[in-house]
Amino acid sequence: MSNTFGTLFRITTFGESHGPYIGVVIDGCPPNFSLNEAELNEALAKRRPGTTPYTSPRQESDTAEIVSGLFEGKTTGMPLTILIKNRDALPNQYDNLKNLYRPGHANYTYLKKYGIFDYRGGGRASGRETAARVAASVVAKKIVAEHGITCIAYITQVGTIHAKVNPTLNLDQLEQLRQKSPIHCPDLETSQKMQELILQLQLEGDSIGAVVTCRATLPAGLGEPIFGKLEAHLASAMLSIPATKGFEIGEGFLAATMRGSEHNDPFYSDTDKNPHLASNHAGGTLAGISTGEPLVFRTAFKPASSIKKRQESVTLQGEKTFVELQEGARHDPCVAIRAVAVVEAMTLLVLADLVLLQNRYAAEPRVEPILS
Amino acid sequence: MSNTFGTLFRITTFGESHGPYIGVVIDGCPPNFSLNEAELNEALAKRRPGTTPYTSPRQESDTAEIVSGLFEGKTTGMPLTILIKNRDALPNQYDNLKNLYRPGHANYTYLKKYGIFDYRGGGRASGRETAARVAASVVAKKIVAEHGITCIAYITQVGTIHAKVNPTLNLDQLEQLRQKSPIHCPDLETSQKMQELILQLQLEGDSIGAVVTCRATLPAGLGEPIFGKLEAHLASAMLSIPATKGFEIGEGFLAATMRGSEHNDPFYSDTDKNPHLASNHAGGTLAGISTGEPLVFRTAFKPASSIKKRQESVTLQGEKTFVELQEGARHDPCVAIRAVAVVEAMTLLVLADLVLLQNRYAAEPRVEPILS
Amino acid sequence: MSNTFGTLFRITTFGESHGPYIGVVIDGCPPNFSLNEAELNEALAKRRPGTTPYTSPRQESDTAEIVSGLFEGKTTGMPLTILIKNRDALPNQYDNLKNLYRPGHANYTYLKKYGIFDYRGGGRASGRETAARVAASVVAKKIVAEHGITCIAYITQVGTIHAKVNPTLNLDQLEQLRQKSPIHCPDLETSQKMQELILQLQLEGDSIGAVVTCRATLPAGLGEPIFGKLEAHLASAMLSIPATKGFEIGEGFLAATMRGSEHNDPFYSDTDKNPHLASNHAGGTLAGISTGEPLVFRTAFKPASSIKKRQESVTLQGEKTFVELQEGARHDPCVAIRAVAVVEAMTLLVLADLVLLQNRYAAEPRVEPILS
Amino acid sequence: MSNTFGTLFRITTFGESHGPYIGVVIDGCPPNFSLNEAELNEALAKRRPGTTPYTSPRQESDTAEIVSGLFEGKTTGMPLTILIKNRDALPNQYDNLKNLYRPGHANYTYLKKYGIFDYRGGGRASGRETAARVAASVVAKKIVAEHGITCIAYITQVGTIHAKVNPTLNLDQLEQLRQKSPIHCPDLETSQKMQELILQLQLEGDSIGAVVTCRATLPAGLGEPIFGKLEAHLASAMLSIPATKGFEIGEGFLAATMRGSEHNDPFYSDTDKNPHLASNHAGGTLAGISTGEPLVFRTAFKPASSIKKRQESVTLQGEKTFVELQEGARHDPCVAIRAVAVVEAMTLLVLADLVLLQNRYAAEPRVEPILS
Repeated sequence: MSNTFGTLFRITTFGESHGPYIGVVIDGCPPNFSLNEAELNEALAKRRPGTTPYTSPRQESDTAEIVSGLFEGKTTGMPLTILIKNRDALPNQYDNLKNLYRPGHANYTYLKKYGIFDYRGGGRASGRETAARVAASVVAKKIVAEHGITCIAYITQVGTIHAKVNPTLNLDQLEQLRQKSPIHCPDLETSQKMQELILQLQLEGDSIGAVVTCRATLPAGLGEPIFGKLEAHLASAMLSIPATKGFEIGEGFLAATMRGSEHNDPFYSDTDKNPHLASNHAGGTLAGISTGEPLVFRTAFKPASSIKKRQESVTLQGEKTFVELQEGARHDPCVAIRAVAVVEAMTLLVLADLVLLQNRYAAEPRVEPILS
Repeated sequence: MSNTFGTLFRITTFGESHGPYIGVVIDGCPPNFSLNEAELNEALAKRRPGTTPYTSPRQESDTAEIVSGLFEGKTTGMPLTILIKNRDALPNQYDNLKNLYRPGHANYTYLKKYGIFDYRGGGRASGRETAARVAASVVAKKIVAEHGITCIAYITQVGTIHAKVNPTLNLDQLEQLRQKSPIHCPDLETSQKMQELILQLQLEGDSIGAVVTCRATLPAGLGEPIFGKLEAHLASAMLSIPATKGFEIGEGFLAATMRGSEHNDPFYSDTDKNPHLASNHAGGTLAGISTGEPLVFRTAFKPASSIKKRQESVTLQGEKTFVELQEGARHDPCVAIRAVAVVEAMTLLVLADLVLLQNRYAAEPRVEPILS
Repeated sequence: MSNTFGTLFRITTFGESHGPYIGVVIDGCPPNFSLNEAELNEALAKRRPGTTPYTSPRQESDTAEIVSGLFEGKTTGMPLTILIKNRDALPNQYDNLKNLYRPGHANYTYLKKYGIFDYRGGGRASGRETAARVAASVVAKKIVAEHGITCIAYITQVGTIHAKVNPTLNLDQLEQLRQKSPIHCPDLETSQKMQELILQLQLEGDSIGAVVTCRATLPAGLGEPIFGKLEAHLASAMLSIPATKGFEIGEGFLAATMRGSEHNDPFYSDTDKNPHLASNHAGGTLAGISTGEPLVFRTAFKPASSIKKRQESVTLQGEKTFVELQEGARHDPCVAIRAVAVVEAMTLLVLADLVLLQNRYAAEPRVEPILS
Repeated sequence: MSNTFGTLFRITTFGESHGPYIGVVIDGCPPNFSLNEAELNEALAKRRPGTTPYTSPRQESDTAEIVSGLFEGKTTGMPLTILIKNRDALPNQYDNLKNLYRPGHANYTYLKKYGIFDYRGGGRASGRETAARVAASVVAKKIVAEHGITCIAYITQVGTIHAKVNPTLNLDQLEQLRQKSPIHCPDLETSQKMQELILQLQLEGDSIGAVVTCRATLPAGLGEPIFGKLEAHLASAMLSIPATKGFEIGEGFLAATMRGSEHNDPFYSDTDKNPHLASNHAGGTLAGISTGEPLVFRTAFKPASSIKKRQESVTLQGEKTFVELQEGARHDPCVAIRAVAVVEAMTLLVLADLVLLQNRYAAEPRVEPILS
């Protein structure tokens, strides 16, 4: 009942990792945005596994097909539906897991909730579902761009290795650095160390957690008090991504150690007498509304649950057993790497929705759009 | 537009800290739960400032009045409305703040969003609004209790002082310890040190951040994939509380440093062949659905922004100025202490909603309730 | 769970006819609209009974109090809450109805649904609840007025007496005529006959049904396909008013008798080459979106169920009994008269919501409103 | 933004009449209902044109494909997605309509709303979209059947020809009679006359309006006051169907002519002392909640706008022109005939949603469904 996200820019995702398609319906997509399938495929490629040794070898060619809501290359305001065919669904691979609970996986809780035991891979709970979100975010990105909004996510921690990212870098500079790292970490020296660790875990058949940082530039005024605070939307969006365990904005948990006199961001005035914040401990919001300073938040990812190491478990009949992925089984040593694209996607979806919401206060009502 | 929280158990809060009332309408309150105003007032007392030296001396007598939805002491299924009169509204106190941006406060962003400058205290963004949530949670608590659900929140960190809470304590034991601490920290020795720090900051006119931990016992099966994951609801609920900067569940950010082989909770089978988790690194959910293990999560609070120390700012006209609270002004040295009740309240509201949602799968339809 | 109406301009009503208050919270009220309690009371007076012999003698002085969301006479964007005190609640009046099902009333179905038997008057289902909607519509009216939208409702049928209203009259002319009729029927000659019939029924202790017509001027482009069609919103809004049994737009049920060649409204072009409809059989919408032609729809009201005539019924214990209102009991011989204000209110609420929704397509994004 | 219908049983339809697919995502579909594509195709066949001379010769083979939410023939609780391929999309057919407003059609208002002119057939506003609703209702039907709910819709008026349907017939008897009429009218004698009229209009290239009646058996207690009244949901559902102009329940507009003493349904008691209604003027609800008596409502359909007669219109440039469908163009002389299946579908969707909503009050909480 909760496969829909957003109020005015509203996506509904569907499909299981081993079904014929995953997909998304975008309801509330504004008209007259140009869009094509090549753009979608380019975005999907960023999330796709199998392109570097640092992610699962699962081959997802991920070609998106737009089946509604587009006319002569432009969005029409009608539901925009994107289908992504599953080409590498190998349910047989899971034959030895048909009858047991997989540690860290959905099969136990889905059974408890729905009374259904679907042994095939992650089913709906698989990371594969997030491809649909990435596809939808391509449109969101265009909407927010009209308001000068851009965002970028990147790896800042893998295990206990922390990246040092110069806070004065702008988003373009971050983007250029990030592209040089196969694991999306803009501190290239640290990236190297992280890559070594990941390869080591790959060999061991184990996995490692990580932290993804996201920065966005945006105007002031976005966010809806009291329960629609910008950070509440972002926290919910991040914790909806598989394998996430934490969210923090600005100083985050470090704020718990600070004094008000340290944490408060003082105001100053520029030469035009416009107010600004002299620092950004808050991370871009005050009372749930964007300040105009960059949005900065972090999301913690647990190590992927699918590992090749032998793990204790029980069968559906309650007998002790062991889980062991088959030799050729695909496994993601650091799932956060592919999640970088998903963090960005969810951020864009949140912001597109909040931008459309804020538009309701339009100074110049526009009940009859002009024929383009 | 976002003053409503919940899907089936749905609260709408209203009112500003300096208006005549704050209040809440609960829509979707099931019928036949007994309720009285004394219970509400008892719950409100836990959030109320002015009762110990560790919180603001603001006097909020907080007497709740139920004005709809109750008949002969029982809920009727109609909207249940609770009004709480503001008795200590002193807008004059803010006269010297009428014309400037307050660091860490809502007045800057509300102006940016709404084009309205309301200089009186926090207005809607004030912590006072959360009293309405606490009142609503009294009903939520009764609903979830029918399903064996209870929860408790407590302080586990103030500044850099960390409490050590025995993880084998049950909720009753935690409650007994918590009651002995005026700041709701069940590690009484550490509580003493935290209290000393808070009093010191009180004297300095400064404030300090903190972390609130919440534990709940609950059945398996609660939570709605994909975007209504239990942790996504909780994260959103926590980040909707004023002054929050982070949320983590289970191992949280520490999970980023762990390996899959460490983090995965193995299954074992009890003597009745029922499966259980041998550990609870996950913190009570898998794939967004409760496992039946205790829910454990933490929320980071920043230090309160209202401090007595002189802070730099600018006037609405863009002139440099200083913010200084008046001598008698109320100030909360550690806002998280009062937020403990709010964390509990939001948790109950989330769980009550998810319980009602899960009921839709009722095996035995009950379209015509029996006359009580 | 359904005491909320609207998506962006969202009202939640609460309160029972015999409780201390009824009221409404408007969430999503745009900032910077001026409002005062006198305006609310003026609007409430139009719905109020007891002012002419044609409605119930129930005395509702209906003084509205705004308790949140207003600052210095302007809306702030925060939830706007209006309380209306019940001054004429006489639950004793219903003592002889404590133990029986009232024909045409809510007490039977509310018992079946909620397992609660509230014998006091209509409780939540009473027409009194609609006063809260009328109060909320005062703000809606201001919002839509900015877009050139106005609307007027009036009686066009009482029993079998049909009014003849000149379709070329504009809304101002209709308003002037309507004001001359104590039962809001702009065909003054027919109004006289209707009044006679109503007085006759008043004497007989019986009641009569009626039809309310509503006309609105509005721009093209309002309404949200597929399920948010303008007529679907209006139909839902009208059928949410107590005592309504039907809704039709344009030719309505008469359209069932027409041919496409008759019913289709041809297009013509004005001297500026702008397209217009040469007729308005459709009643102001095509495919659920407003055409720019006047909106015209009708709502059927049943005769009020509270009559003084003796009626057969059964007690809660299943014994045969009779319902008879006490001598002094209040009774509305034609409930549609007071509902005229409610039809108008619901129309304004629907249109305000659709206007804010349409604004999301604002050509000129306005993320940061200017300080007024 | 309004392509979603329902709260707990929530459908989102997508697709245009001339795109590759139309389809539907059902979110909130309860688990463990068996379903297969043959059942869907059987339901779609009832709505399909081209099967009798009384409907459009458009060939829609309408084979449904379930692409998510099903595992081993049972629903899983995950989004259930159904794709229906468009096989008879002939956009060239519309070449002569590329540059003009079509009377009674969506192209004018969609242009006004979205700034997009899609000349190809009805696009999203086409009746074809309703096939997706019919597919979704197959699941809804199974859910409500568990609560003893069934419904049937049928033609009761075409033009000025009124059917006489014996009110004492039960739903099975109605179904048997309906099946004998190619236009779904259970009064077979009158059906014959209606068919003659329709064939005559077919020849003339014109169309005719009609009324569809729907009856349902259901338990008491369904419907959610105040704005979620059963009749408000139904009215909204019916007015969301293309070509609808009116809705009435029970006596409907006739109630406007009745007295309270006539219209009120008296209560009586059966031998077990259980209360019942002695008549059903109300049409199955009181105060928006089902009484347990049969639901009876009617929906008015206008004559289809696509006719072969020459009609006046204007071009996009504002020049006078004429609309004329090409010789071979498909045209539906009485669109209500195919809409019978859609009225039934929307009724089932409304009732399934209300049943799931009512389940939230389940006496026996069922948080952990049993493994099937």
